[in-house]
Amino acid sequence: MASGEFEGQTGVPNALAHDLNALPAYTQRVDQTSASGGAGIYAAWQSVASGASDLTLLVGGEKMTHKTTGEATDVIASLTHPVEYKHGVTLPSFAGLTARKYLDEYDAPRESLGKVAVKNHRNGTDNPHAQFRKEVDLETVLESPVVADPLRLYDFCPITDGSAGLVFCPESVAQEYTDDYVVVSGVGGATDTHVVHEREDPTTMGGVVESSNVAYEMADRGPEDVDVAELHDMFTILEFLQSEDLGFFEKGEGWKAVEEGVTDRDGDLPINTSGGLKSKGHPLGASGVAQAYEIYQQLLGDAGARQVDATVGLACNVGGFGNCVTTTILEQP
Amino acid sequence: MASGEFEGQTGVPNALAHDLNALPAYTQRVDQTSASGGAGIYAAWQSVASGASDLTLLVGGEKMTHKTTGEATDVIASLTHPVEYKHGVTLPSFAGLTARKYLDEYDAPRESLGKVAVKNHRNGTDNPHAQFRKEVDLETVLESPVVADPLRLYDFCPITDGSAGLVFCPESVAQEYTDDYVVVSGVGGATDTHVVHEREDPTTMGGVVESSNVAYEMADRGPEDVDVAELHDMFTILEFLQSEDLGFFEKGEGWKAVEEGVTDRDGDLPINTSGGLKSKGHPLGASGVAQAYEIYQQLLGDAGARQVDATVGLACNVGGFGNCVTTTILEQP
Repeated sequence: MASGEFEGQTGVPNALAHDLNALPAYTQRVDQTSASGGAGIYAAWQSVASGASDLTLLVGGEKMTHKTTGEATDVIASLTHPVEYKHGVTLPSFAGLTARKYLDEYDAPRESLGKVAVKNHRNGTDNPHAQFRKEVDLETVLESPVVADPLRLYDFCPITDGSAGLVFCPESVAQEYTDDYVVVSGVGGATDTHVVHEREDPTTMGGVVESSNVAYEMADRGPEDVDVAELHDMFTILEFLQSEDLGFFEKGEGWKAVEEGVTDRDGDLPINTSGGLKSKGHPLGASGVAQAYEIYQQLLGDAGARQVDATVGLACNVGGFGNCVTTTILEQP
Repeated sequence: MASGEFEGQTGVPNALAHDLNALPAYTQRVDQTSASGGAGIYAAWQSVASGASDLTLLVGGEKMTHKTTGEATDVIASLTHPVEYKHGVTLPSFAGLTARKYLDEYDAPRESLGKVAVKNHRNGTDNPHAQFRKEVDLETVLESPVVADPLRLYDFCPITDGSAGLVFCPESVAQEYTDDYVVVSGVGGATDTHVVHEREDPTTMGGVVESSNVAYEMADRGPEDVDVAELHDMFTILEFLQSEDLGFFEKGEGWKAVEEGVTDRDGDLPINTSGGLKSKGHPLGASGVAQAYEIYQQLLGDAGARQVDATVGLACNVGGFGNCVTTTILEQP
């Protein structure tokens, strides 16, 4: 997403193709802020579906931890509208404001947000690629320092280094190499207003609704067909919003699903079995790719202790505060 | 290409869709260093050819002139391999070294390079969008300050602000709106070694050869079919190399074509009728888009005093020192 800003190094796709000794090749960088990984999936799919490529390597990555939190936040804030960040409204601020509105409007207890963190940290303990492989209890979450009221430290994902990769090709090409592949049955992307406060209802993410509608239609699937999902829990409140806007639960009922254990690993619709951005970490350009990798592992029965029963999985990657969203549906062949 | 580095503002595609009131939409940024515009053409074509979109707006732009030349050079240098720029080798250095080798190897006179600048400045005087609408004579070019021997100030493109836009759609959709459209008959992209000194022959740009082969094959065209071309004359020497590697002229003969006026506006194969990057300017992310716009105007007979006789045109956009290249072939319907 931001190798130039974080590391003073651009042209990374060229360097990667060179260092992998992958020439002849063609490369490009796809940037869609924190949804860069999902946008990369959409672009990689387009490269194959258009016939331009029959083998596309998608790599997402970010190196962030050498920066201070303030420096990283300055870079990240620059992806929002200047009318917002120049007046001090950053993505965490939006999360706090939205969480407050959600709790008020849908009579949700503050504890329900904390339970997202608890669940995702629990899942992350079984993910060898997770940044934080440790459980947290609800009390720890609820008593952690306030960041953007009502949200506290443990409602937020960390600053992370990381990368993830996927290979895209026509199904016939995949079959030449392996039996262990999954099918991209649907993929869609959508932007919402870039100025967040112009949205009619801040607790609805229009980009999630629109991008998933495109993906569902392409896959000829609906939310009821999804067995496992990776959602963009950069902030705990986002897991509620996405689970509703994807059609998994009624508006204002996402919090109940967490309270009732529906989204636990042994629930009806496990969400963020990887640990999510909360525990696995959020290396910006990598996160969307890593989400799809978790679904890939779940569909192949290769998720170890995290394994759930799934033939259809969904990944939702959010850029900005829903400014741009991609949704990908993966299925067993 | 580098709004984050130059202006501290990212998320620009979202802002653009919002400000154009174009929602619902999906946006992404395509970065391929100084070939970002051409990479944008390739990506926009893929979005339509894959069926993901039936109307894609491609906008290239860069704001650079608020930076000092040193600051701009620092950003641009970061797209090359660290083994090079950290030891002081920038893109202009490569141009100087390559020009020296070319002149020696092919017995070309230094004046021939200067004549590229003279020709392109002459063309630019008739382009209302050119940064420099003034002729320069050969003596001025040859006596301008040395930048990277044997290249002098007038062998280089300037630092520029600018933008360009194109709309991509299936031909059937275009016909609903207008008769004034052109067809993308071929498009290809290719990387070369990211470490420039690892190339076998520095006077051959492998990315130009490979990307044009892909584009020619898709279009079922050859170099002999091209009536007009926009080449990436970031440095005068690059116009020679590309005109050879695209197959317009034999290796080592590109300089003769300029000497003989073949690439003049009234020659057999006019090159850079727009004025090229040399006179029109080089707003990095915009240049590849603006190249295609010039071809579009030429094919529609809409190029005013710059008009040449053309039914097939080609645009070649170079990233880095040929690290990544895109070639696009446009034709009258």
